[in-house]
This record gives sequence, structure tokens and C-alpha cells, in this order.
Amino acid sequence: MKRNFVLSAICTLGAFALLSPGSSRADEGMWTYNNFPTAAFKAKYGWAPDDKWLDHVRLSSARLAGGCSASFVSESGLIMTNHHCAHSCIQQLSTKDKDFVASGFYAKAPTDEVKCPEIEINQLVEIKDVTERIQAATKGLSDEKYNDAIKVAQAAVEKECSTSDKVRCDVVSLYHGGLYNLYKYKRYQDVRLVFAPEFPIAFFGGDPDNFNFPRYDLDVSFIRVYEDDKPAKMDHWLKWSPAGAKEGDLTFVSGHPGGTSRLLTMAELEAVRDVELPDALINLAQWRGELTQYQMRSPEAKRTSEAQLFGVENSFKALKGRWAQLLDKQFMDAKLAAEKDLRARIAKDPEKQKTYGDAWDQIAKAHAAEKEIRLPLRYLEGGQLSGRARLYGVARTLVRAAAELAKPNDKRFPEYRDAGLPAVKQRLFSAAPFYDDLEIEQLRFGLTKFREDLGADHPAVKRILGKDSPEDIARRLVSTTTLKDPAARKALFDGGQKAIDASKDSLILFYKGIDPDARAIRKKFEDTIEAAEKKNDELIAKARFAMDGTSTYPDATFTLRLSFGQLKGYEENGRTIKPLTTMGGAFERATGRDPFALPASWLAAKSKLNLATPFNMATTNDIIGGNSGSPVVDKDGQVVGLIFDGNIQSLGGDYGYDAKQNRAVAVTSQALLEALDKIYGADRIVKELRPISATPAKKSK
Amino acid sequence: MKRNFVLSAICTLGAFALLSPGSSRADEGMWTYNNFPTAAFKAKYGWAPDDKWLDHVRLSSARLAGGCSASFVSESGLIMTNHHCAHSCIQQLSTKDKDFVASGFYAKAPTDEVKCPEIEINQLVEIKDVTERIQAATKGLSDEKYNDAIKVAQAAVEKECSTSDKVRCDVVSLYHGGLYNLYKYKRYQDVRLVFAPEFPIAFFGGDPDNFNFPRYDLDVSFIRVYEDDKPAKMDHWLKWSPAGAKEGDLTFVSGHPGGTSRLLTMAELEAVRDVELPDALINLAQWRGELTQYQMRSPEAKRTSEAQLFGVENSFKALKGRWAQLLDKQFMDAKLAAEKDLRARIAKDPEKQKTYGDAWDQIAKAHAAEKEIRLPLRYLEGGQLSGRARLYGVARTLVRAAAELAKPNDKRFPEYRDAGLPAVKQRLFSAAPFYDDLEIEQLRFGLTKFREDLGADHPAVKRILGKDSPEDIARRLVSTTTLKDPAARKALFDGGQKAIDASKDSLILFYKGIDPDARAIRKKFEDTIEAAEKKNDELIAKARFAMDGTSTYPDATFTLRLSFGQLKGYEENGRTIKPLTTMGGAFERATGRDPFALPASWLAAKSKLNLATPFNMATTNDIIGGNSGSPVVDKDGQVVGLIFDGNIQSLGGDYGYDAKQNRAVAVTSQALLEALDKIYGADRIVKELRPISATPAKKSK
Repeated sequence: MKRNFVLSAICTLGAFALLSPGSSRADEGMWTYNNFPTAAFKAKYGWAPDDKWLDHVRLSSARLAGGCSASFVSESGLIMTNHHCAHSCIQQLSTKDKDFVASGFYAKAPTDEVKCPEIEINQLVEIKDVTERIQAATKGLSDEKYNDAIKVAQAAVEKECSTSDKVRCDVVSLYHGGLYNLYKYKRYQDVRLVFAPEFPIAFFGGDPDNFNFPRYDLDVSFIRVYEDDKPAKMDHWLKWSPAGAKEGDLTFVSGHPGGTSRLLTMAELEAVRDVELPDALINLAQWRGELTQYQMRSPEAKRTSEAQLFGVENSFKALKGRWAQLLDKQFMDAKLAAEKDLRARIAKDPEKQKTYGDAWDQIAKAHAAEKEIRLPLRYLEGGQLSGRARLYGVARTLVRAAAELAKPNDKRFPEYRDAGLPAVKQRLFSAAPFYDDLEIEQLRFGLTKFREDLGADHPAVKRILGKDSPEDIARRLVSTTTLKDPAARKALFDGGQKAIDASKDSLILFYKGIDPDARAIRKKFEDTIEAAEKKNDELIAKARFAMDGTSTYPDATFTLRLSFGQLKGYEENGRTIKPLTTMGGAFERATGRDPFALPASWLAAKSKLNLATPFNMATTNDIIGGNSGSPVVDKDGQVVGLIFDGNIQSLGGDYGYDAKQNRAVAVTSQALLEALDKIYGADRIVKELRPISATPAKKSK
Repeated sequence: MKRNFVLSAICTLGAFALLSPGSSRADEGMWTYNNFPTAAFKAKYGWAPDDKWLDHVRLSSARLAGGCSASFVSESGLIMTNHHCAHSCIQQLSTKDKDFVASGFYAKAPTDEVKCPEIEINQLVEIKDVTERIQAATKGLSDEKYNDAIKVAQAAVEKECSTSDKVRCDVVSLYHGGLYNLYKYKRYQDVRLVFAPEFPIAFFGGDPDNFNFPRYDLDVSFIRVYEDDKPAKMDHWLKWSPAGAKEGDLTFVSGHPGGTSRLLTMAELEAVRDVELPDALINLAQWRGELTQYQMRSPEAKRTSEAQLFGVENSFKALKGRWAQLLDKQFMDAKLAAEKDLRARIAKDPEKQKTYGDAWDQIAKAHAAEKEIRLPLRYLEGGQLSGRARLYGVARTLVRAAAELAKPNDKRFPEYRDAGLPAVKQRLFSAAPFYDDLEIEQLRFGLTKFREDLGADHPAVKRILGKDSPEDIARRLVSTTTLKDPAARKALFDGGQKAIDASKDSLILFYKGIDPDARAIRKKFEDTIEAAEKKNDELIAKARFAMDGTSTYPDATFTLRLSFGQLKGYEENGRTIKPLTTMGGAFERATGRDPFALPASWLAAKSKLNLATPFNMATTNDIIGGNSGSPVVDKDGQVVGLIFDGNIQSLGGDYGYDAKQNRAVAVTSQALLEALDKIYGADRIVKELRPISATPAKKSK
């Protein structure tokens, strides 16, 4: 899931807002569209977006269900997002002989647009508060019963709302259970690739420059949603700004921040710091090393694993930045002080103390209990033993779907409820190719780490590996399974439990040997740890509401949020970092060697370009991973940029926001047009974006 | 350096002795030979080793200067150590066509013994207290002057003592500067390989079983020291025990624990926990991933990188275990309480408070300052930018030696003082082969991480990489350098600064571009941070002596120590782990698949073996990385085993000792004989070891 790793600083200054009551300090906040702080905003800026503005920008925003943000930019369903959000699709559409990641892609004619096998687009059409209904269902319950009751109530709400496959309904827990909102989306699954530049300019500077500013990336792709085999007609889309934004301009970012952890308790933060992040970083580092060498096997090995290596490196750098934040003693001391303060204020009122006082300790207890089962949970149920092998995921989905779909909707695992099935099916029946060699290495890696972390004598390890080595198993399964064939997958899915029972497929049989263990550990986790965490998180959320009101924003949940800020530089090690770079700067930074090599198209077009065109920009918007691909819009709701990153100082933003140095990083609207026009000759797109007037770059043409 | 990674648990019980005054709780302690707790030992066991016993065992002990322990086991210079301590030599003596790592090595005739290019053996002949002399030199000094004065005084003492290349003299700082002792060794550089079993049985169970018990490894090798081209004649060597040790028997381990951190301050421990260990683990994990895939290139790639992958995985697992200890809140709380207690006791006496009271805060300050320079320090001066490429180290040694040897002895970097030159030369002129492909990948990795961690815009990164990619640089340097030829290295070394100035060698030129930056950052570190740490560590050591006396043991320093304990099982997750395994157990555990595949020699000999022969054993001896290869001796000073590992619970032993579960792991003397005799037919060695009478295994023959 990209939202876990796209975007997310080594903030050593520690001047973080710790989300104090009514906090709208600086430009902090990832605001829900139904709770935008209009009054406070107006007081500060003398103007605020009205409902019409908010509705328009919301309906012009889009989500890639797999983990990115995007926006509608034409009435014909044209969508702007990042290259790295469509990277997998671009790779899936490529072959050994035609590598669109390397060469870029441009559909000169509408008929040249090609379907992305696994992209689903969601457009948020409605938000409804369902808190009362959900919370009523859990009244007086605890543990397993509490958790099950939430799930049953959520399933019912989602099922009622999902009137067709074109509607996606998610019950979202906000403020960690303080509120439940129903998010209703229009769902598009026919999504086609329109344009992508070459990877070397989309990700110019590569891993070394990732999460850095100044920056020189054209991290864009255009895709289009279709309905009934025709470009979808939109009522809402964002117009293009003629002039882009300049220093000091107000900027809004409408997108889907994947997740933040600003409301976590100390026990939760410590678990993240001491267990979750280190484990993830070490696993990523090792797999990154393997992929680096794997790519040297052949150009084809490189081509077929490039998107994955990008993802792994991006994730590694993002998580490392977050971790640095949690290792900052000053920051953690401030978090601790804030928690102590809230608890002390609660303790003063015996009634509140009785209701809420114990919640923090209960969460700490749940975390201590989680330590005991975290490794089997992660490997068996979390799927880490697959080492990211897609084929394993396919087998698991088939085996689980057969069992789950036989149950009533509200008794199923949430991911197999009717409301979620379109997404399951899209992925399961995707025409995206499998790369055998990579699948083998992934599965071998996963099984090896499984044995390493649980120990060779763990009963599950012994049962699953038997006397075989991870290599043997991976090679055998990948070479013999029939699941690479979409028709075989379809037959097994449609055949249900009977088909699964009768299947002799090696991978289906292998996964069937794992499923009982995986289900058992999931049940243990959900009934005890998850239930305790949810219930006590809800209590803490209510305690916060009770003490401080509701004039703040909830932690990010990969749902649509609006953040505001301005185009603004910052100070770093005594130097002033200007908020805009130019296209000419890319030529200065280029070395000719990967990852600082500009593509041939850029070198050829250099003389035609207005090198003074602003290229990338930094804004104070409060964003996080998942915001990749978000439009940056001005007061008039016009596109002035395309978010693709945050600076290194923004990475700690998972836990708090520091306006001094935390910056969102975007491609300017001017550079996008200049490149589409003069480098790529993408006239069809330029026309469709219909800039109201020539951009400054165009003037110089 | 093996001592950094060989041996060193996830101790969650936290019942650690925190080295309280006069601590001889349980069997804790890595005792110096000149401060063995004879009285306390005698009080507990009713008997204690006398001076003769201690002298004999000390003189029968040996150190591999590169980082392991060993023992003399015959009057003809035969030495027993671990396979993994000689692994590099065994690899260096192998070729594409004859792989002694895979097939094992046995010199049937004395003339078949082959010289190891890089092994140096040290035998501790004398320990002298030089505390007064060293401390007198620093009286009244601080910062740079304090640090320089120590170095000058150390150099003088070492120089006086080093009367020939056959004598090695090291001034050792014990109790972190509380005492200075001069350790005088006899040095052997003509060391030849006599016997090694196949790697698959030396490291049976591989990484999954590493640091685990029960265990089934024959991790042994025999080497021999020569003088004047003849086997050296020894006055002291260990005799072989006829019967080995049985449960409850007293066991002594005489070896060279590489380093412990039991006396570190909280600021130091936190730096290890939050910065040093995570950084090291992540670097190791990534390189481990690269090596894993690199090995798949070809059997030759596997052969030439196997020792390194072993080292990396061993180190990774050891450091992860240590880290788990520091992440244990209960353990750290106890450490903090102990530090607070000591400081409170000091604060009660105004005189002591004035002298010692500030030392802890000064160390914390030095650590905070270190954070600012740690990355350039580690990459530039610590050599991390080489990614372990040996050729880079060669270039660096040549450039540095030219400059340093032109200076007076006491003004040189310590590693280039006369007393250390034999070791420098042995390594520099070693006939060990270089593997180009591996060197390229190592250097590329190092340079890539250098750019990643310091950032592409760091002045040193820009200067060193220029417009080249790490790949380009690595490939160019490794393919063009002349330094692979020992004669070229000799000529440059002998030619001194003039030869270096005139050299056109690509790698020499490359390193010359780095050296000024490396020297500058080292000077900054030594003059400020190291000086402050040393001075304040010394104050804390003196404060401890002043408050609690000197009846404890110092942190390990890769100098000879004696630990005592007993052959004893333990409880783990409610199960009783017996302290002895059998050779038959290896056959039961074998799967036929690497790393659980027994070699053909074992399968062929199975019917001849007494399968009930004890194979590996667990003892309560307090050991740590560097103790690998140590003999286990009984009350009579006879060999009953060969240390090769610690269990997973022993890894936290870096910071404290827990007698409940911390176990040293050794091969039994019985299994060694049984295997040499019946599997390997190594009669010559069996005779030389001269068991006083038949072992139980032999009886059953």
C-alpha cells in the first residue's frame, strides 16, 4: 500500500504543535471536509472557502484506492496524479521490448489510452455521521463482544449504502473511535493511462534526493476514468491556474493523507519507536539489498523490479525520518507532558476519572500483550511470510474468499464483505503479469525471515517448512502453480469452497496449510488486543472531546482532507531555502549518471524551454504519505501544483507538525504545462487542461 | 574484526546483576588474571586455582589478533580454535577448483600444513600495572592536551617493551581508565592450517540455529604456530580431559572477550540504543541482502563471499540481541537506578561531588556533540564509505603509513606506532587473493550509503563523487588499481612519502582525495569528544573505586580473562533445556537441505560413531564475542570443551549477566576426538592431543 510509504524529517528543533485544544496554530491540520475550521480561518485570512468552494474541490478530488491522491482536471474524466502513483500500472503495461517506465508513455490519440489493470479511482460524493448508530451497538460491551459489535454495525451501514459496484462505502473511525462517519464514493475501475514522462525525470535525483528540497522532479502522470467504454463526463473538475503560485500565496491541498499518529498514547508511541519501526526498517533494508543485486541479473530483472525497489527505498527513507522523530528525547518529553496534563485534568473530576482514567493503562497492557504474539501475527496473518510475493496473495485470497463468502455478510472478515468485493475482484482478476524469478526471490525471502524470526523450532515453522528449504519451496510453488492464469483464478473464485477443496494447485495446497494458524492468531489478536485498544482509544477520544471540545482535526485515515498553507521557504543550517526551483536548475544538477541523468527528450528540448519556469515548490501545507498526487489549488480553486513529496523535515509530521521547516513539495502548474507542451508535444492534454490564458512560460515561446 | 561480532539474547527476565560492589553473584565475571577473586571463589567452592594453575592456563591460552580466542593443545605449537575463527584463512587458501571451506582440510603429513596469510597469534607472557605512569602524564590536563598526553605516555611504554617483532606490547585501559596495564605478548605470525571440518558441520543449522541451544556444531579448526620454519616448542599447553565434563562440573573459560558495556553511563547506553546499534543493524541488513543475492551469481561468487556473509549474519543476530536488551524498559530502569544511586552517594560528600559529580553530565554533553559529526566521522575516518572493500583499506594504509612513519613514534596515529607495525605489515603484504567483483560491489555499496546518509549536497560527497556514480567509481578503481599485486604494495610502502607522491595508481589517488577530510574529522573527534569521554570515564572509574573498592572486574577489552561456571541446563518457556546434546542428535535434526545438511563424511561414518557421545554443551560461564575459540577447562586445567557460541539469552550479556538463562555454548572434548578419529581419520592430531586415557566414546569402538 503506497499510503504507507509515499510521503510521510529529522525534526530536531522540536517546536511541534502537540495538537492542543482548538489548535490551529500556524497552518497545521488535515481537516475533514465536514469540519473545516471556517471561523478560525476567516479570522486569520479575512476570507474563507464557502460550502460551494468546498463541495467543488471535494468533488474534483480523487483517491487511488491502492494508496494515492489525485484530481479531476477535465470534464472528460482526465485525472492528474503522480508518476509514482501510476508506476506499477506503467510497469504492468510494459514488456521486455517496450518499457514505458524508461521511455515514458503518451497516448497521442484517445484510442491509444490503455487500461491499468489494478487502479481503482474513488470520488467522495457524501459524508454522513453514523456515530450514534455504531456506538449504540457497543453499549455496555467489552472485549470480543465489543469488537464484534462494531464490525457487525459497520457491515450493516456499508451494505445498506453500497447499492451497486459503482458505489463504495466505508465507515471511517475518526479521532480513534470518537466519531464514525460514512464515506460514500463513486467508484471507477476502468482507468486508462494517458501520459507519463520517463522515470528518470519523474524521479530525478532518485533515492538521494527523495524527501529533499530544493528539487527538480516531473513526478506526474495523467490517467482517465471511463464509463461504458467512454471517457466519463464530470460535473466537477479543477481548472488550471494561468500563473501558478508565487511566494506567500495561500495554497490548499485536497488529498488523502494515509495515516498520522498524533493522537497516540505514550505506550503506543513507544511500541512504534521500539518495535514496529525498527522491525519494518530492518526488513526493508535487507530486502532493499536483495533487490539492488537482483536488478543486476539482467535489464529485464531491473525493469520488472524497479517499481518495487522505488517503493522499498521510499518507504525506508520515510520510516527512518519518522523514527528519528520518535528518538528525539525533547519531542517525546513534550508528548509525555501533554499526556500527563490531560490525565491530571481528568483525574480532578472523580466521575471522569472513573469513566476515562484507566484507558491509558489498558492500552499499555494491550501493547504488552501484543509483544507476545506479534511475530506469528505479522508473518502468518500479516502475510509477511510471503515476502511480498503476489502469487501467495492470490492463493490466500482464493482460499479465504471461498470460506468467507459462504458466511453472512456481517460475519465475514471486513475485507470480504460485499462492500469491498469489487476491489478484491479487480486485483484478483487483474491481467498484470507475474515475474517468476521475482516471485521466487520474494517468497524465499519471506520464508527465510519467517524461520529466522520465529526460530527453526517454532511449531508453525516446522509445519510449514517441513524438511524443505525456503528456496526449494519457493521455486517449486512458483513453477508449478496454475494461478498465474487469470482464468484459473476466476474458476477457483467462482467455484467457491467446492473448487478450493478439490484444487490440486500447489500454492492453494500450501496456503491451506497456513490458513488455520493465520486465522487462529488473528482471532486471538482481535478478540483481546485489538478490542482493548479500540475500546480504550474510544474512551480517550471521548475524554478529549469532554475536556477540550471538538474544534480540532482527527488523525489521518486515508480519507479526504483539506489542508491550507502558503508557498514559503525556510531556514536550514543557517541557509535560506527558497520555495521555488526552476527548470534550468535541473540541467545544472544533472551529472549524466543515474539517478542524476536527464532523459534525452529533455536534453533535446533544452533550447526551446524557458529555463526560468518555476519547476518545484515548497509550501507549508500539512500533508503526509497518501497525499502523493494531491492537487495544490489557490483561493479560486485552480490548480497551481501537484504534490509529490515532503521535505526531510516533514517526515516527523506523522507525530506532530512544525511550521518552521515542515514543507510539502509539489511540481508547479507552470512546469507541467511547459514540459507537456515543449518537451513531450502532448498537445491533446495541454488543450484538455485548457489553461485560461498563457502561462508565463508560454509567453516566452 | 571478529571480536565485534563473534558471540555476544533477548533477555526479557531482567534479573541482571548490575555489577554492584564486590559483585561475584552467581558465576558472573570476566576476571583479569592479575585480579582473580581467589578468596571469594574459595569461600564458595572450597578450592581455588593457585598461581601455578593460573600461570599455566594463561600461558596455554592464545589470541588471534584479528579477533578470536584459542589455546595451545600440544607441545608442538598446535592450537585449537573455532572453524569460524579460521574461516577467512580457509577461504583464502581455497581456489575455484579446490574449496576447503566446502570440503574441509586435513594436513595428513606435517609438510601439508599451509600458511594462513593473515593470522597472528598472541600469547600473554606478562601483565604489568602502569597506571601511575600513565595517569601522572595527564595530571592537570584536559581536552586535547589530556588525550595527547595519554597517547604519548602509552606510546613510550609500548615502545620500551617492544624489543623485537616477536614481542607485542599493548597498554590496556581497564575500568574505562581506572587502571592501565601493560599486556606483553609473544607474537607468532607464521601460523599454518592443520585441520578444518566441512563448513556445513562447523556451522550446522546455519543462521537459523546460530546463538541457539540445543546445538550440534563441530565448530573447530586446528592451526599451528611455527618458529624458524619449524613447529614452535611450547612450555605450556593444555592436556585433554579423558572424560569431558558432566552436568554440574565446574568449568573455566580462558579467553579474550572482545568488549562489554556494563560500566557505561546512561547517556552512553542511550546513544548505543538509539543511534549506534540501529545504524549498524540497518547497514548490516542491507548488505546482508546484497550478499545473499550476490551469491546467486555463481558458485564462485558464493565461495568467495561466504565467510563475509557468515560474519554479517552473525554480527546482525548478535547486535539484534544486544539491542533487545537495551530496549527492555525494566533493564534500563535498573541501570538508571544504579547510576542515580552512585551519584547520590557521591553527592553526599562535597569533596567527592566536586571531583566526580559532573562527570556524567560531561559525558552526556560529549555524546550530544558527537551526534553532529557522527556520520562524516563514520564514513570518512571510520572507513564505512569503503563498504568493506579490502583494496580501499590497502590504499588507505599505504597513504597513511607514508605520512605517519615519517613522524616520531609518539606523534603517530596509534595504529602506526612501531609496536603495531608487524600487524600492519602482515595484513598489507598478505598473499590473500582479492575478488574483483566482490570488491566492486562493496565499494559501490559504501559510496552509495555515504551519499545517502550525508546527502548528495554534502561538500565531502560532492568532492569525492564528483559527477560520477558510485558504480562507475567502484568499477574503475577496482579494475585499474595495481594494489592487488603484493609487490606493488611493498614498493609503495618501502618508498614512503616520495613513492606515494609519485604514484599514479587510481586507488591511491582516490584515497588521497579523502585523507584530508578524514584526518580533519578524526582530529575534531579526538580533541573534543574522545578527550572528554576518556577524562570523565576515568573520573567515574575513580569514583567507583573510591566508593566501592576494586573487588570487581573491568569491562571486557579483548584481553585475556578467566571466567568460571558450571555445566548446567536452564528453563525456557516452561521447558527444561538439558546442558548436553549428542552426536546422534545431529542426525535427527538433519533435513538434507542447507543449512541442515550433514556432510557426506558424517553420513558415511554414522554406523561407526558412538551416537551417544556428548556433542555440544551449555555452561554458565560469563563470555561475550571474542571468546570464540576459548578452551573450556576443568579444575585440573584439562580441556573439556571448545567455546563457539552463546545462547540467544546470552546476547544481552554485553550489558549485564543473568545466570538464570545466560549460557556459553561449546563443543565437548569427547565429540572433538570422536569426529577426528572416526569421521576424519585425523590420527596425527588425535595422537598429538594425547588423551590421557580412552574417552568413553573410544571405549565403545
